[in-house]
Amino acid sequence: MYELFIGNKNYSSWSLRPWVLMHERAIRFDERLVPFTRGSNFDAFRHFSPSGKVPCLTDAATIVWDSLAIAEYLAERHDGVWPADREARAWARCAAAEMHSGFGVLRERCTMNCGVRIRIDHMPVELERDIIRIGELWNEGLARFGGPFLAGAAFTAVDAFFAPVAFRAMTYDLPLDDTAAVYAARLRALPSMRKWYADALLESWREPGHEAEARAAGTWLEDHRVKPSGARAG
Amino acid sequence: MYELFIGNKNYSSWSLRPWVLMHERAIRFDERLVPFTRGSNFDAFRHFSPSGKVPCLTDAATIVWDSLAIAEYLAERHDGVWPADREARAWARCAAAEMHSGFGVLRERCTMNCGVRIRIDHMPVELERDIIRIGELWNEGLARFGGPFLAGAAFTAVDAFFAPVAFRAMTYDLPLDDTAAVYAARLRALPSMRKWYADALLESWREPGHEAEARAAGTWLEDHRVKPSGARAG
Ligand SMILES: N[C@@H](CCC(=O)N[C@@H](CS)C(=O)NCC(=O)O)C(=O)O
Ligand SMILES: N[C@@H](CCC(=O)N[C@@H](CS)C(=O)NCC(=O)O)C(=O)O
Repeated sequence: MYELFIGNKNYSSWSLRPWVLMHERAIRFDERLVPFTRGSNFDAFRHFSPSGKVPCLTDAATIVWDSLAIAEYLAERHDGVWPADREARAWARCAAAEMHSGFGVLRERCTMNCGVRIRIDHMPVELERDIIRIGELWNEGLARFGGPFLAGAAFTAVDAFFAPVAFRAMTYDLPLDDTAAVYAARLRALPSMRKWYADALLESWREPGHEAEARAAGTWLEDHRVKPSGARAG
Repeated sequence: MYELFIGNKNYSSWSLRPWVLMHERAIRFDERLVPFTRGSNFDAFRHFSPSGKVPCLTDAATIVWDSLAIAEYLAERHDGVWPADREARAWARCAAAEMHSGFGVLRERCTMNCGVRIRIDHMPVELERDIIRIGELWNEGLARFGGPFLAGAAFTAVDAFFAPVAFRAMTYDLPLDDTAAVYAARLRALPSMRKWYADALLESWREPGHEAEARAAGTWLEDHRVKPSGARAG
């Protein structure tokens, strides 16, 4: 049985990727949620993940410690992780890899924080550029491979790589064109995404670093998370 | 015939990865070097690469615009891009993916600049951490899979992903343990790496941004590049 180590559902965008991929592809696993602590998580996460980061998948003695490597590992063992069509697969891997190593401004300025709603008062041009490129990628995939997912009829790893953007679009009300906004809503409506979101709202941990990042992005409007009853960040 | 679009050999660490991989795996391609310009390369690179970045591989009408996606694309078509052994392959993909999305401090503070030699006067602790993790990864791979390459007897994509670190180790005299230093030297001694390095020294372009980044890392000691005879950055 696979074990998937993840961070807080409210915050951990990297963890969401393999989690939603495995759920949508019906690949069973045991979930091991290890909440973020104040400051560095390196020592705590090193107990199971060589890089000191989440997500990390274990398959008996094999440790797979990066989200994209997890996708490739699963693709060798299960159908449908990447699209079957060669052209769609090449495109999907490029788009997922572009997300994996890029979009630094979006990732830093609009960190995932599922339960809150923020208004961006001033849109930095670098952030706008990232959002435009995401919209362009999504429109291209949907048009070229026929939708409703990025590389065709089925949810594949490339959708999983953009799943955190769907939550960010809601949290920060990101300016997306209609096609992109509809796609983001489609991702959020998936059963696994709804489950992740519901779990995120129920978490009582508030990690000060992530909270401060969200606040720095603009004006704090709403918080849909359950109130932590005296609970503190770990 | 494949076409591989790359940036300046002296500077472009991402370009080096598929270039050295294809050379070492004897996969033929036409090289298309497009030098960096002052400021943003986005518009120039967008003519061939959808992300506005190099490297970018084309295979007839198929465009593969990210280094890791290029590795996977080639792995579907050629033997030996990843190790044949399942455990070695899972490890190699994790280590390559960790490089692809991580080591931000090393990448920013010690940008690739093959021809120059810099002394780091003050080692920031975050940079030291990246170097320690690289040494740890290299030692693990070499010990576990028997060397002389990271995932065993043959050069594979994971070696390609760390090839730029071999040049950075020389440029910035990075503190590596003996095993890691010997491995870096082994990479630099590969025929393709020697060719890349020789080509880098002959380039007369000096891109002010990259030059300033290297200078900011410490004390400028040597410059082995041919003197640009009145040539200017593009
Ligand atoms: N390259 C990794 C990135 C993983 C990553 O950065 N994870 C974050 C959480 S979303 C982490 O564990 N950070 C460690 C920390 O915050 O101390 C992947 O794709 O899996
Ligand atoms: N995720 C990409 C990263 C590529 C990248 O960042 N390339 C740099 C050059 S080494 C680039 O083209 N930058 C554009 C610029 O400097 O304007 C990959 O792995 O191929």
